[in-house]
Amino acid sequence: MDSHADSDFTLANLPYGAFEAGSGTRVGVAIGASVLDLVELAQSGLLDGVCDEPVEVFGSGSLNAFLALGPEEWGATRARIAGLLSHDDPRLRDDVNLRERAFVRQRDVELLMPFDVGNVADFYGCKEHAINCGEILRPGSDPIPANWPHMPVATNRHRSTVRETGVPVIRPCGQTPPGPGAAIPRHGPTEKLDFEVELGYVVGGATELGQPIAAAEADRHLFGVMLVNDWSARDIQRWESTRHFTCKSFVTSISPWVVPLAALEPFRVPGPVQEPEVLDYLRVDSDWNLDLTLEVRLETERMRELGLAPELLARVNPKGLYWNAAQVLAHLTSTGATIGPGDLYWSGTISGFGELERGCLLELTHDGSRPLELASGERREYLADGDVVTLSGWGGADSGRVGFGSVVGEIVPARVAARA
Amino acid sequence: MDSHADSDFTLANLPYGAFEAGSGTRVGVAIGASVLDLVELAQSGLLDGVCDEPVEVFGSGSLNAFLALGPEEWGATRARIAGLLSHDDPRLRDDVNLRERAFVRQRDVELLMPFDVGNVADFYGCKEHAINCGEILRPGSDPIPANWPHMPVATNRHRSTVRETGVPVIRPCGQTPPGPGAAIPRHGPTEKLDFEVELGYVVGGATELGQPIAAAEADRHLFGVMLVNDWSARDIQRWESTRHFTCKSFVTSISPWVVPLAALEPFRVPGPVQEPEVLDYLRVDSDWNLDLTLEVRLETERMRELGLAPELLARVNPKGLYWNAAQVLAHLTSTGATIGPGDLYWSGTISGFGELERGCLLELTHDGSRPLELASGERREYLADGDVVTLSGWGGADSGRVGFGSVVGEIVPARVAARA
Repeated sequence: MDSHADSDFTLANLPYGAFEAGSGTRVGVAIGASVLDLVELAQSGLLDGVCDEPVEVFGSGSLNAFLALGPEEWGATRARIAGLLSHDDPRLRDDVNLRERAFVRQRDVELLMPFDVGNVADFYGCKEHAINCGEILRPGSDPIPANWPHMPVATNRHRSTVRETGVPVIRPCGQTPPGPGAAIPRHGPTEKLDFEVELGYVVGGATELGQPIAAAEADRHLFGVMLVNDWSARDIQRWESTRHFTCKSFVTSISPWVVPLAALEPFRVPGPVQEPEVLDYLRVDSDWNLDLTLEVRLETERMRELGLAPELLARVNPKGLYWNAAQVLAHLTSTGATIGPGDLYWSGTISGFGELERGCLLELTHDGSRPLELASGERREYLADGDVVTLSGWGGADSGRVGFGSVVGEIVPARVAARA
Repeated sequence: MDSHADSDFTLANLPYGAFEAGSGTRVGVAIGASVLDLVELAQSGLLDGVCDEPVEVFGSGSLNAFLALGPEEWGATRARIAGLLSHDDPRLRDDVNLRERAFVRQRDVELLMPFDVGNVADFYGCKEHAINCGEILRPGSDPIPANWPHMPVATNRHRSTVRETGVPVIRPCGQTPPGPGAAIPRHGPTEKLDFEVELGYVVGGATELGQPIAAAEADRHLFGVMLVNDWSARDIQRWESTRHFTCKSFVTSISPWVVPLAALEPFRVPGPVQEPEVLDYLRVDSDWNLDLTLEVRLETERMRELGLAPELLARVNPKGLYWNAAQVLAHLTSTGATIGPGDLYWSGTISGFGELERGCLLELTHDGSRPLELASGERREYLADGDVVTLSGWGGADSGRVGFGSVVGEIVPARVAARA
């Protein structure tokens, strides 16, 4: 069987998603340009023993039932699928009828939200991002709040606006600070619409009230990782201050595939030294940072007219994240909060100090004061209507490549209400 | 039929909840000390026409299916139930067998979470609370942030820790500010465990992305109101600053019954004058404030030993809330966020300037500096293990009384982890 080298979805990856199959919504695994339909495998008995009632689990319309199971079932399922896809196993390789039913082309199916979203929170875990933003927005003052070195600071978020790739981004209208000399805030379409490139951490299993997870035990509760574009309206955000609320609740875009943590093992690296030393509940005893490449590309309407390729705006690596996924889970459950299947916690914007290492336009354009000069001859302070932003991300190369698929969003004009 | 005067659950109320009926979870309506089982009514055909498939809607395990319907079905259901409970309608009055099946005593059933919680957010809508807290925590500085008079400020919250009345409150452990001269924060059980008395707004229906709700149209999207105790750890909150996260995510307690907005019509009154004038999308053209009495009572272990009644700590009226439920919905959807059945948005602590009009211990004890002297001879800066806090609330009197039932929570000791 082809190793699908150069695809995001090699045999080393095997990420899970949900797709519309005509006969209902099913869980599938991406392989090259195809989706492997796990309900077909289950109905053929090939998933017997990986979990109880695999037909129900993978035919339930989303990943949640599978996420609810736990590390043993996740591991058994992954091992079984890898085995069935290997050259040595004849059961799928030689069953032409089953292969025809089980493999569908991604282009022929509608990819759906992979899971029903539970709790959501946005962390602020990248020190370079905090420093960059501080220098731009509050020059001369310490960019790192007093509590920041001691815990992964976060805000809870609105769950129902987390959407699959491709959902258009309607330019939001909102309150922005009063203009010079004015007493009343302005209200209208944001003039500072931004993207943010982030990693999302997908929870499996569930906890009870009052049951904190120590960082050292987080691997039993973290199922996988996805790409997140955490769209933000910077002018609305400025006026809301640190209580991010409507400035980030218009839509949050996620990749269609959840890459299991198991597939990311080769890319686990030590994180930055944490100084001062973290409290006990935040201590990890293994490597939790991920050495990956994440890219952001912009395509404007003019680029489409001119036939230009989308332009690379940013390339970042999450290996430098100060607060890792295990610490995120440990902190958010530290006072006893429950987590459950489908919870999604994202890392915060991922940046560095290099020129391309800036995971949002706020950083890339110094809040619009240094516009980007695009190859199309255009300039951008922030996103314009018609702009398409695409995130992509991967680790490794060739047959060992593990990618997330892309997260695409097109900016569409504000719907200005008649009475506004 | 008895009007159940002096009960929270008169014929003027008819609030909805969910209960375990042996044969599964059902939606019921509280009447006096009983629950009226809507599945029994539906199976007898008495709810025909109020909505499609009433047996499925009310037998689906929670209120969500009913909440999803809309104002026409909510109104028809309420009118039908009120009719069936009136002296003039013989269908339920004279059917002894049906009455026996349909009325169960509240004490004989387990009341459950009335609905699956969707999005959650905590508003900060009471000016008196903001002023009181500002004077206590930041004396000499303006207690009202610049954006506060222009929009209902809020934070999203963790949804899976919203629980029904009676769930114990496990004293949370968390990070608190470094002690004098120390560089590292402390970590351990909170020493400032507090209650907050609030109203919760329950959403019905659903919206699409990019579809803001003007405040003037909010009545089609707001189904009802409940009581909320938004437990808070003030020392953890102090360290988290304005990004409330773990300090309020250990548990949030709600009343078992959702009182429909229709039952609260007699208590709608004008809110305070909003000056400066609010932006168009926040304008209301009807009265949205509620003239109700909300009480907080404390029972300590010693009170139980001495046979003393729980002591009244606070009595507040939400009619003075600066930001009302319609404005809350308008603001949170203003940039295009979707809302859906089971969303729960709470008002923020409800306070006034009178001695008893302080909806949390932070205000009642000036952050612990002026302890309460209880009739039991005890003092309280903040809550102690074994304390039971009960919220209650109602409008009107006698047969017109509309109450919420109580929200009870007992503080149980912290579970200190072995390695902490």
